[in-house]
Amino acid sequence: MARSAANPPRRVAVIGAGFIGTHVAAGLLDAGFETTVINRSPLGERKARLLDRARVAIVDASARKLLAPQLADVDHVIYCAAGLMPAESNIDPVTDAALSLPPLLHVLSLLQERPGAGLTFLSSGGTVYGPSEAEFIDEDHPTEPVTAYGVMKVAAERYVLMHRRMHGLPATVLRCSNVYGPHQPATRSQGAIAVFIDRIVRAQAVPIYGDGSIVRDFVYVGDIVDVILRTLGRTDGSATLNVGSGQGASLAQAIALIERVSGLRAVIEERPDRGFDVPRVVLDITRARTELAFEPTGLEEGLRRTMPEIAVATEL
Amino acid sequence: MARSAANPPRRVAVIGAGFIGTHVAAGLLDAGFETTVINRSPLGERKARLLDRARVAIVDASARKLLAPQLADVDHVIYCAAGLMPAESNIDPVTDAALSLPPLLHVLSLLQERPGAGLTFLSSGGTVYGPSEAEFIDEDHPTEPVTAYGVMKVAAERYVLMHRRMHGLPATVLRCSNVYGPHQPATRSQGAIAVFIDRIVRAQAVPIYGDGSIVRDFVYVGDIVDVILRTLGRTDGSATLNVGSGQGASLAQAIALIERVSGLRAVIEERPDRGFDVPRVVLDITRARTELAFEPTGLEEGLRRTMPEIAVATEL
Repeated sequence: MARSAANPPRRVAVIGAGFIGTHVAAGLLDAGFETTVINRSPLGERKARLLDRARVAIVDASARKLLAPQLADVDHVIYCAAGLMPAESNIDPVTDAALSLPPLLHVLSLLQERPGAGLTFLSSGGTVYGPSEAEFIDEDHPTEPVTAYGVMKVAAERYVLMHRRMHGLPATVLRCSNVYGPHQPATRSQGAIAVFIDRIVRAQAVPIYGDGSIVRDFVYVGDIVDVILRTLGRTDGSATLNVGSGQGASLAQAIALIERVSGLRAVIEERPDRGFDVPRVVLDITRARTELAFEPTGLEEGLRRTMPEIAVATEL
Repeated sequence: MARSAANPPRRVAVIGAGFIGTHVAAGLLDAGFETTVINRSPLGERKARLLDRARVAIVDASARKLLAPQLADVDHVIYCAAGLMPAESNIDPVTDAALSLPPLLHVLSLLQERPGAGLTFLSSGGTVYGPSEAEFIDEDHPTEPVTAYGVMKVAAERYVLMHRRMHGLPATVLRCSNVYGPHQPATRSQGAIAVFIDRIVRAQAVPIYGDGSIVRDFVYVGDIVDVILRTLGRTDGSATLNVGSGQGASLAQAIALIERVSGLRAVIEERPDRGFDVPRVVLDITRARTELAFEPTGLEEGLRRTMPEIAVATEL
């Protein structure tokens, strides 16, 4: 693994045990790290079982006093929490902001008291850039989000980079594209692949916004875990890195691949464009390839690793 | 006045009656606009007198219900409010965020219900860009603030631009450099010129952070008012414009000019660099010159307009 680790951390905290955070924590445990998982609400049975080797703290991280003892002895924090879902965030941006910022600001302030401890912040390559003409969007592209969710990710990144610059915080911002993988909830507005698989497996109509020509950058969740492990103990290199699949796939192409991998047929239900859906977002991942020796998993392979789990979950 | 006004507004609301907001509201009244001033706390005697032709609403704009009736009939909003001062914002960024975002988000949501009504948002060219090597910083420069204040301005700008793009809000973001002028409080961490004048007039030591070589872009408050008037009813052109003096002045140069204009002598008291003070921030104002026919007031002339007021206020 290519890393420039002076002091690789041993004790790592993961904030936010959502779909990505849970995979990250499981990956850290598998890699032998002492792992603390901090989540606002109690873990469901499956997550609790998956993370039974972790120390799990159910606290509201927006309360600094509750968060502080959980971070008292950690060497590195991986921030996987967010406010509302992108679509919800535009309906109630005030709540989104109130949920998004305080936990991160407390983490930054607490890390200031632990010199040397690092931070990996999960940002959103799918939302921070906004609509773009670029075939591949690199990290220097302007950030003009069209969701409050994206605005809050931009703000969060700026706070993190400020601490990196002002207080020497070893921090990396990972702008992940559209993440998919096993156990992603199919009931939310985020996670197109999970919704597609769920509907196809249940033989229900697959809702797509627009005509299916929208192109996204679907990245396998295991790749996020891989990249995060490569950022631990990192003290130099770029502050901000895109993490994507390196190529675009239209919604129609993704559905066709799911059909091929599952052997099932999809029935498409076209819905009107939601307005905030940008036609194409595909990240330029040259930086992650170069600095972290990252190699993404292909979409078909990622779907193979994702499908059995979803199918089993659905059949229960 | 160069403006591309399809429907120039008649009824304008100014949110935030601080130093800049008060000058803006007074300028609007002088220009014949029906002006509503919305401020969190009651106006002091001088401001109340200055704005006696305005409708003044003392409401907490973070409460949507209180703000809504005040904006029910306005054609344009000029947003001059902010959270904490830059230095304070880094001490308590959670409070800063809680104060900064909800009022703006409510304004944006309320303007969505009033198609055609516009917004001018006052951002901060002195903080949003952060440290830069550029001799003149243009609007495409990356935004990497080193204060929470700057991060919140970046976030606020992104919300505004999102509404411009998604809902056709006629919005202009003005990134103002270091604003000075009559009646600027000399008791706060913001407003170097006001502090310098106050200390020189009182024959007290003038505190400067660093050795006086720090270069800033001091813009006269009347120029901000001028530019704002030029943005009213504007429906095309750039969304984001720098507003500065077009040239840099070191703190030492500014103090020497104050000495010349006032005929008084300054005693300098050097203080250690505050860490977040960037060596040079001077805005490139080509865009405002070109699109708005803006011509800034020179520093010496601006100081002449500023000085008598401060001197009188101080001698009372």
